Amino acid sequence: MVVYVDHAATTPLRAEARDAWLAATETVGNASSIHTAGQSARRLLEESRERLAAALDCDPVEVVFTSGGTESVNLGITGLYRARRETTGRTAIVAPLAEHHATLDTLGWLDAHEVAEIEWVPVDRDARVDLDAWRGAVGGGDAAVATLLAANNEIGTLQPLVQAAAASVEADVPLHVDAVGAFGHVPLSFRGLRAASGSRSAGLVAMSVAAHKLGGPVGVGALVVAREARVEPLLHGGGQQRGLRAGTQDAAGAAAFTVAAELAVGELASESVRIGSLRDRLESALRGRIPELRVSGADAERLPGHLHLVFPGAQGDSLLLLLDAAGIAVSTGSACQAGVPEPSHVVRAMGLGEGAARSALRLTLGRTTTDADVDAVIGALPAAFERARAAGLSSRRVPGSAPSFG
Amino acid sequence: MVVYVDHAATTPLRAEARDAWLAATETVGNASSIHTAGQSARRLLEESRERLAAALDCDPVEVVFTSGGTESVNLGITGLYRARRETTGRTAIVAPLAEHHATLDTLGWLDAHEVAEIEWVPVDRDARVDLDAWRGAVGGGDAAVATLLAANNEIGTLQPLVQAAAASVEADVPLHVDAVGAFGHVPLSFRGLRAASGSRSAGLVAMSVAAHKLGGPVGVGALVVAREARVEPLLHGGGQQRGLRAGTQDAAGAAAFTVAAELAVGELASESVRIGSLRDRLESALRGRIPELRVSGADAERLPGHLHLVFPGAQGDSLLLLLDAAGIAVSTGSACQAGVPEPSHVVRAMGLGEGAARSALRLTLGRTTTDADVDAVIGALPAAFERARAAGLSSRRVPGSAPSFG
Repeated sequence: MVVYVDHAATTPLRAEARDAWLAATETVGNASSIHTAGQSARRLLEESRERLAAALDCDPVEVVFTSGGTESVNLGITGLYRARRETTGRTAIVAPLAEHHATLDTLGWLDAHEVAEIEWVPVDRDARVDLDAWRGAVGGGDAAVATLLAANNEIGTLQPLVQAAAASVEADVPLHVDAVGAFGHVPLSFRGLRAASGSRSAGLVAMSVAAHKLGGPVGVGALVVAREARVEPLLHGGGQQRGLRAGTQDAAGAAAFTVAAELAVGELASESVRIGSLRDRLESALRGRIPELRVSGADAERLPGHLHLVFPGAQGDSLLLLLDAAGIAVSTGSACQAGVPEPSHVVRAMGLGEGAARSALRLTLGRTTTDADVDAVIGALPAAFERARAAGLSSRRVPGSAPSFG
Repeated sequence: MVVYVDHAATTPLRAEARDAWLAATETVGNASSIHTAGQSARRLLEESRERLAAALDCDPVEVVFTSGGTESVNLGITGLYRARRETTGRTAIVAPLAEHHATLDTLGWLDAHEVAEIEWVPVDRDARVDLDAWRGAVGGGDAAVATLLAANNEIGTLQPLVQAAAASVEADVPLHVDAVGAFGHVPLSFRGLRAASGSRSAGLVAMSVAAHKLGGPVGVGALVVAREARVEPLLHGGGQQRGLRAGTQDAAGAAAFTVAAELAVGELASESVRIGSLRDRLESALRGRIPELRVSGADAERLPGHLHLVFPGAQGDSLLLLLDAAGIAVSTGSACQAGVPEPSHVVRAMGLGEGAARSALRLTLGRTTTDADVDAVIGALPAAFERARAAGLSSRRVPGSAPSFG
C-alpha cells in the first residue's frame, strides 16, 4: 500500500465524481445538437456550469470549460494579452518569478513570438510576491496584463490576491489568477475577490482552475472569465462557450468536475483543519528528528496540505527515490516539468540558493491522508536523510547525470 | 427509446472504453511524477500511445494526445503554419471550401491576426476537392501549409488523400489531414498514406483524430505528428509530449480512446458492410417513397454511415423537429456550429444553392443502428416531409426567424 504524499501533483478521483462521469456518459448526444438527445447533454452541461459557478462564486456564463489547468492558464494569459495589446498597444506582462511552468512557458513563448516583454516581480523568502514591486510593475504604464499564482504550487504560499488585484485595478490592468492548486483547498470566491479589490474590466478578470487537483478527473478544467473581460480565444471552431473555447463540450467531464468541486468546497472547512493538523504534526515531528531541516514558507500562510522541506547536504532526488523504495510517494517540486532534473526555479527565486533548490522535497497531504500515513513518513524520512546525506551531493557529479545547470 | 441517427455528431461510449477509463482512474499518480505511482500512470499512458499508434499505423512517438478533434485541428494547422512561415516566409494556407468549422474558424483567425492568406479550393457537386485546383494552389509558391478533411463531415464524401498529399509533396508543402470523422470508419493508415504519396517533411505530416466519433469519450483526441514535421505548440507548460502539447496527461482518457479505436478498427471491415447496407436500404427506400428526394454525394465514395438528403420545398430545420417529435434524432448538418441556424456552407460549396442548403438533412448511422431504426426512419420521413413541405419555406420569412443571409 503506497503512502501517497503527492496530492498536489494529482489527487485520487472521488467516487462521487466517477459516478457522475459514468451517469453522464449514459446520456448520448452532442450538446450542440438540436434534437432531444443533444438537448439532454446540453442540460446536463449547463446544470454543471451553474453548480460549478456556485462553487466558484461566479456567474454561470463566466465558466468556460477547458481541458485542464494548463489550457486555462494559456487561454487566460494569452487571451487577455492579445486582446489588451490590440486595444491599448501595451506589450508588457507582469508576473512573479515563482509562477508555475504553465505560466512561465506561456510567457516565454509570448516573449519569443509576440512582442511581449515580461516584467518579473521578485518574491520573498517565503515565495510571497513583493507587493511594492508588483505595484511598480503593473503601474509602469506598459502592462497589458498581469498574472499571479494564487498559492505557490511548490511551497504552498498563499498570495495577497486582494492587494495584488487592487493594484492592477488602479493601473487599469486586467489580472489572471492561477487558482489551479488553490481551488477546493482554501476559501476562494471570484465574486468576493473582485468586490474586495474593486475589479471591473481591470483587476481580477480571469481565474484558472482544474478538476484533478481536487478529486475530479484529469483532462478537465475551467477558466472563469468575467463578463467585462475581453479574451481572444486559443481554439477556434464551432463557437461554443461564448466563442471563447471551441470544441465539443465534455458534459461528462464537466459533471465529474462539478461534483468533485462541490464536495471539496463543502468539506473545505473541516478538511483544511484536519489536513493542516496532520501537516503540522508531520512538520513538528520532522523538525524534532532532523535538526538540520529547514521548512520553506514556514512564516507564510500556506495551503493546509503543503510541506516543503530543504535537507542540507542531501539530494532531493535521492530522498525521493529512497522514500519511493519505502513505499512513500513524494516529489522534489512540481510534477509538471516532465521529469526534467532542473533545480526548482521557485526555491531559487526565494533566494535560498542552488544548494537548497537541489535539496528540496515537497510533501503534499490530501483528502486520503491518514494519521498512519504521517507516521510512516515520520518513520522513514530521518533514515532516508541519513542515507542521502551520506551519498551527499556528489552523485550529481557522475558523468551523464549532471543536471543542465552544471 | 430514441432512434439515434446522428452518429457523426457523437456516438455512444463503448462499454469497453468506459471500463478502460474506470480501470485507469484506479491508478493514482501524475504521469510526470518520478515515484512508482506516477510511473504506473506513465506506463499506462505509454502503453495506450503504443496501441493507438498501432491502430493509426504510425510510430508511438508520433501520437500527441489532445483534448479532442478541435484542438488537434487547431494545433495541426496553426502549428504547421507558424513553423513553416518562420522558416520559409510563406504565408498562404490552402484549404477546400467544404472543410469543418474547426478548420474554417482557425483559418479565419489566422487570416485576421497572423498575415495568413487563405487559398480556397473549390469542391465538386459531390463535395470532392477539385484536384487540379488543389495542385494549382499548393504549387503556387506561397503555400506554407495545406489542410484537407479526409471525409466530409456533412456529406461523408471521401477525399483523394493520396493524390492531394502527392501534390503537396511535389510543391514542398506540409499537409494536415482532418481525419476526425474518418478514423475508425474507413481504412486509414498514416504510414501507408505517407508511403503512397511519397510524404517526408512535405506532404502528409499531421493528422487529427478524436475519440468520441468512434465510441471513446468526449474530450480526448490526438494529433499524429510525423517525426520530420515541425509544429509550433499551442499550449505551453511542463514540456509534455515532445514539447508539442503541455498539460497533465489524461491517462484514463487515452486508455479509453485506445480501446475504442482498437475495437472500431478491428470491426471496421464487417461494420462498414453492415452499416453501409443499412444506409443503402434506407437510401433506396426513401428514394422510392419520396420522388423529389435528392441524395448528396451519391456519385462519390462515402463514409458507410452517411446519408445526406435534400428535400426540395421543405425546411431541414422543420424536418429535424418533426422527426425529433417522432423520437428520431438527426441533424441538418454539422453539430459543431452550436445551433447557429446558418445554411450549410458545404452544400453551398457544392453548388446546390441556398434552397438546397436550407432543405438538407444529415442522417448518420453507426454502431448501434439496427434494422428497426432504419424501418422507423423509413416510416416517419415521408410524412414528415409532407408536413414540412406544406409549411413550406415560408416559416423563414417570419420576422425574427430570418437566417443571417436574409
